Amino acid sequence: MKIALLGYGTVGSGVYDLVIKNREKIRNKYNEDIEVIQILDRNIDRFKDLAHYNVFVDSIDKIINGKADIVIEMLGGVNPAYDFVKKSLLSKKHVITSNKDLIAEHGEELRKIARESGVRIAYEASVGGGIPVLKPLKESLVGNDILSIQAIINGTTNFILSKMYNENMEYSKVLKIAQDMGFAEADPTSDVKGYDAARKITILTDLGLDFKINWKDIYCEGIDNIDAQDIINAKNLNSKIKLIAFSKAVDNKLYIAVRPVVVKADSTLGKIDNEFNGVMITGDSVGEVLFYGKGAGKYPTASAVFGDIVDIIINKNESKIVLSKENYEFTYKYPFKSDWLVRVDSDDINKVTGKIFDIFSSNRVEITSFLSSGEIALKVSDINEYELEENLLKLKETGYLKAVKYFLIDNA
Amino acid sequence: MKIALLGYGTVGSGVYDLVIKNREKIRNKYNEDIEVIQILDRNIDRFKDLAHYNVFVDSIDKIINGKADIVIEMLGGVNPAYDFVKKSLLSKKHVITSNKDLIAEHGEELRKIARESGVRIAYEASVGGGIPVLKPLKESLVGNDILSIQAIINGTTNFILSKMYNENMEYSKVLKIAQDMGFAEADPTSDVKGYDAARKITILTDLGLDFKINWKDIYCEGIDNIDAQDIINAKNLNSKIKLIAFSKAVDNKLYIAVRPVVVKADSTLGKIDNEFNGVMITGDSVGEVLFYGKGAGKYPTASAVFGDIVDIIINKNESKIVLSKENYEFTYKYPFKSDWLVRVDSDDINKVTGKIFDIFSSNRVEITSFLSSGEIALKVSDINEYELEENLLKLKETGYLKAVKYFLIDNA
Repeated sequence: MKIALLGYGTVGSGVYDLVIKNREKIRNKYNEDIEVIQILDRNIDRFKDLAHYNVFVDSIDKIINGKADIVIEMLGGVNPAYDFVKKSLLSKKHVITSNKDLIAEHGEELRKIARESGVRIAYEASVGGGIPVLKPLKESLVGNDILSIQAIINGTTNFILSKMYNENMEYSKVLKIAQDMGFAEADPTSDVKGYDAARKITILTDLGLDFKINWKDIYCEGIDNIDAQDIINAKNLNSKIKLIAFSKAVDNKLYIAVRPVVVKADSTLGKIDNEFNGVMITGDSVGEVLFYGKGAGKYPTASAVFGDIVDIIINKNESKIVLSKENYEFTYKYPFKSDWLVRVDSDDINKVTGKIFDIFSSNRVEITSFLSSGEIALKVSDINEYELEENLLKLKETGYLKAVKYFLIDNA
Repeated sequence: MKIALLGYGTVGSGVYDLVIKNREKIRNKYNEDIEVIQILDRNIDRFKDLAHYNVFVDSIDKIINGKADIVIEMLGGVNPAYDFVKKSLLSKKHVITSNKDLIAEHGEELRKIARESGVRIAYEASVGGGIPVLKPLKESLVGNDILSIQAIINGTTNFILSKMYNENMEYSKVLKIAQDMGFAEADPTSDVKGYDAARKITILTDLGLDFKINWKDIYCEGIDNIDAQDIINAKNLNSKIKLIAFSKAVDNKLYIAVRPVVVKADSTLGKIDNEFNGVMITGDSVGEVLFYGKGAGKYPTASAVFGDIVDIIINKNESKIVLSKENYEFTYKYPFKSDWLVRVDSDDINKVTGKIFDIFSSNRVEITSFLSSGEIALKVSDINEYELEENLLKLKETGYLKAVKYFLIDNA
């Protein structure tokens, strides 16, 4: 197997190292020789001191027209990765990518091209970094109907939320620390707005629930509006706020979202802290299984890419037909009855409290804290998000409200 | 793919159900028809009310000489499973088994026969029930040198230890409760003595570290000598006692064991409670990844077996050569420096305390509790098990000791 790398940054050089390190092992185990024959970079001069400088090329055409059997794309972003990957597949080269943007945006089309060209496209590293998730989901759990996927799948936001929880600090302060420590990027938008997690959950939902949806169409709420008081309100319920990327199917209703969720501190998801990732998959046969680890980083990601190399070497028959559940009714708001943590700020907290009990008369409402600021936090039970919003709208119409916000509570 | 089931107990009927349920899905995805054509049972009369009674047979010869492509063995125990599986492989039938006794005892030989016969033997369900572990370890993490495997992999003992910890109860009382609740068998020997976990860790070590060893040759200590005071002594260190099945390689020293280990209550392993299983794998590239879930039960186990059916359908090239690390020096005692929780009962606790500081003069020793019974618990740091035992022997020779016991402490 001759390999071409697109990109020689952190992950690219990690993959190169693993190919060197494991070459003999793969020769022994699978009677297959693996070798990196080309590496694409725009500015190859900067690598001229490397012993393998001779394999660097500065044009994608040299790779497309070259002898590589596998092209490994680690450029990130949709362009020019999309073009390069498409050309590689059309030239009957297998493709491995760690690029979640690319797969979330163009996965279906690229898989179709791969099938038609008789090659494979693999992207284990796009979700959960080094933690094996996609392959176990697709292959080991194939006997299951997947009922739900709940994932803490963005290390940056989990680190920030953990620190806010542990040290009672405000979001902006923690973000700064995370940036200083290298856990958040200078422009943290994609992480803190939930876009990164949204891309990953659509990839998981596609593979697990056979449901294809553009990540931009799902409900996506980040963590940048969470303040220290929200964390305290959750603590009062023995809970933490976690940024959960999830999809859940009940009957033929399917809900996919990225949003902050109040989870019990001692629950499986509640115990996933700091920069750790966890993907919890519930299947009708297997029940709940969790895949957990640090995920990100040079060698963890390279480890996932390397697993895909071997997956191509073992040359298995891929599923030929892509199933898509047509009968799912996809909803943008949470359509199932649940509990909610609601925070209300009002000019007249007494009057608004009366109104709350009035408007939510058919739901259990429990005031969980009166805040010194004059706000109240309450837990509203057994209501879906449509009804909740409708009731909160009625509350707004009373004219007493200064502000209201709410979080889904997961009682599992 | 025509399938024959050996055994129609809990797991067997679960697998039957999953084959029926997933038949159309597999036809759609892999263009392959799966069908159970034979089921072996000694007493087939008891199934005569089943709609599929016609597929039951009472002789293995009918299966060996029959048309099945895959034989799924769920009889448990080594005999007659060993004979039946061997015959099936020799007749060029793929074999799937959930039988850890069989694989731990005869796995290497059976894999050799399978290779020579051009068929496969798969046994994902033998470790961790429904949790995907063996395949991710073997395939997804293939780019790693596996440095260690630490597993809580016996639900019965983890349930018992969790209940002892949470409710300060004695072992015998909790065992009784576990038996009443169906979490422990009437004869719990194989679980509580650690034999079940020992079989599983040798299977994991074989696949992960390429090291083959008979499970009977490894150090195996169960939980039946742990009393409420041991749990309290661990609690004093913010820790729990867990039955850990583990293997760990440093340089060329390899240690495999099943033994109670003192782990921090808030560590990854410490948070795995009740009947849950968790397998933590540390690879040199990926770092730590954890596979976690309930594991056992009818449909979880059937889910793993079904994953193996599809693994055979996708017809991948299996690793041809079985690697074995010849250069490992396998040790029966823990050869690495560690901390230990030591419990000493003595006729003269003052004198023995002096002797302890004397004998362990080159180690840090911290007395963690004086017990009302007159015993003491202490933490001895930075010493391997050989030196620890040597020192404890010297302590015994003083004549002051009534009893001594110790636990490995894992500070991770």
